[in-house]
Amino acid sequence: MKQKIHFNEVVTRDGFQMEPAFVATDDKVALINALNHCGYAKIEVTSFTSAKAIPMLRDAEEVMGRIERVPGVEYTVLVPNLRGAERAMESRPDEFNLVMSTSETHNLANLRMPREHSFAALREVIERYGLQVPINVSLSACFGCPMEGEVPQIEVMQWAQRFADLGVRGLTICDTTGMAHPEQVTQMCQALRARFPALQLTLHFHNTRGMGLANVLAAVHSGIDRFDGSLGGLGGCPYAPGASGNISSEDAIHMLDAMGFDTGIDLTRLLPIARELPGLVGHMVPGQVAKSGRITDLHPAPPSVAELRKAFS
Amino acid sequence: MKQKIHFNEVVTRDGFQMEPAFVATDDKVALINALNHCGYAKIEVTSFTSAKAIPMLRDAEEVMGRIERVPGVEYTVLVPNLRGAERAMESRPDEFNLVMSTSETHNLANLRMPREHSFAALREVIERYGLQVPINVSLSACFGCPMEGEVPQIEVMQWAQRFADLGVRGLTICDTTGMAHPEQVTQMCQALRARFPALQLTLHFHNTRGMGLANVLAAVHSGIDRFDGSLGGLGGCPYAPGASGNISSEDAIHMLDAMGFDTGIDLTRLLPIARELPGLVGHMVPGQVAKSGRITDLHPAPPSVAELRKAFS
Repeated sequence: MKQKIHFNEVVTRDGFQMEPAFVATDDKVALINALNHCGYAKIEVTSFTSAKAIPMLRDAEEVMGRIERVPGVEYTVLVPNLRGAERAMESRPDEFNLVMSTSETHNLANLRMPREHSFAALREVIERYGLQVPINVSLSACFGCPMEGEVPQIEVMQWAQRFADLGVRGLTICDTTGMAHPEQVTQMCQALRARFPALQLTLHFHNTRGMGLANVLAAVHSGIDRFDGSLGGLGGCPYAPGASGNISSEDAIHMLDAMGFDTGIDLTRLLPIARELPGLVGHMVPGQVAKSGRITDLHPAPPSVAELRKAFS
Repeated sequence: MKQKIHFNEVVTRDGFQMEPAFVATDDKVALINALNHCGYAKIEVTSFTSAKAIPMLRDAEEVMGRIERVPGVEYTVLVPNLRGAERAMESRPDEFNLVMSTSETHNLANLRMPREHSFAALREVIERYGLQVPINVSLSACFGCPMEGEVPQIEVMQWAQRFADLGVRGLTICDTTGMAHPEQVTQMCQALRARFPALQLTLHFHNTRGMGLANVLAAVHSGIDRFDGSLGGLGGCPYAPGASGNISSEDAIHMLDAMGFDTGIDLTRLLPIARELPGLVGHMVPGQVAKSGRITDLHPAPPSVAELRKAFS
């Protein structure tokens, strides 16, 4: 019996939020409706941050209102604070995804407040809505901060513990700028699984330094069975022009499928969707399998091969 | 004590051979002379194939004649047959790298003869020159053929055995078109190490489907300590426009360094060389770390962080 791996598709939230050009609401809805039938466990649809902070996702209500909801798929939304949570609840999401950073500098730079203020704001959301909707917390910069450098594992464990104590359903451990290496991933995943055996633990990797799928491999070998991925690897790194962002969902799924894991994803449906993504966003995307085909996609031999076979027979 | 990993840089051979524009001899020599001081165990300098077959490497003699030779670095050359070996010997290489495919169709398509003919031709080279120069054999398509599909592991083992019986020093097991997945790599490496404990075993991966560094990880965890890499990830796949080719040397080295292996490579020297490669070949290259920087390369916090710290203190 194959081991099940659950994928959360984040392209319409994490992928689109930093795109230079607004992706039309119709296109977002059509993309999610297409992803709906690929076998994802979860889709992070959008973010209920302010339109001023993230203009690319200013259509959160409309997108949530128009997408089809397919049984078996959870529709999660990013919620930054109580105001965002009030807006989000109107859209009846299956989960709130709250976010803060384990690095003080990263939290100040991205969320414009100290970590303790973020924690207090997220606690409010959990206390107000935690009985109505399952809560996941995404912890940023868990494998290093691009400004501070090392983030000690104990720091990550302490923030994880504080949210576990508030009764959240899941935690996403994020390598926000692609600083994790496989040895560190192994240590982190083993420690988290030992301490939080009842929590849904998701790993969120970036491929900024080419280590994305190696880190996925290290994580599955440490017993992790939930991953975030972004179609095409969309979602860049602001510090590194030309560098990859999120791991490509289809590349990670393709690898795990080949290795014999049960991702539940139908790559025959997913790859054509991935191949339309460059047209949607107006630029190339880093994902490889959409370009190269699967390892089972063969090519015809050139005509010379038949001639040579005959000549040498 | 850190485990030693040996790197063979193949950019000037495998990387350049399919480039659309000829890389000037002066540039090749300058590149190798720069790579000389980075800590590589081996550099595959060029190929003594016919100038008609691979015009990009038509300057093999001149490059070999002009490069500096640094003690501790082995300078290997690709040798296709006896005629190539005769030419190559004049250049006093430290190793011959012979090549054939484990897939009949791939061998016919690339080398224009059946595998048995290739084997006979390579045996001639080994019998004539094996006492004068160490021999490595690179076996192509060991993890799958883009035309035939699966290449059974036993097929690889049998070709490996035939060359081992001829007394070669090393074998390079090549994933020529990026079809390997980590589980397959683990099985192959364990079988090879068990059967050929005295041979230098090198793994040659491509990143065509994003699995390159995951496969390196699987290989090192199976005890492999020698890898081919191509600077910048140069060396594309003819079947997949836009897809990656060889694994990027600097990305693989960066990962293994971070994990605590001793690659012997000085990334502080190597990364500036990688960053000049796009200028040399006239296009972007897939390697990530040259764009993103190392995980230890930090960024200054934006000015807002200091203001926010003060405001919240």
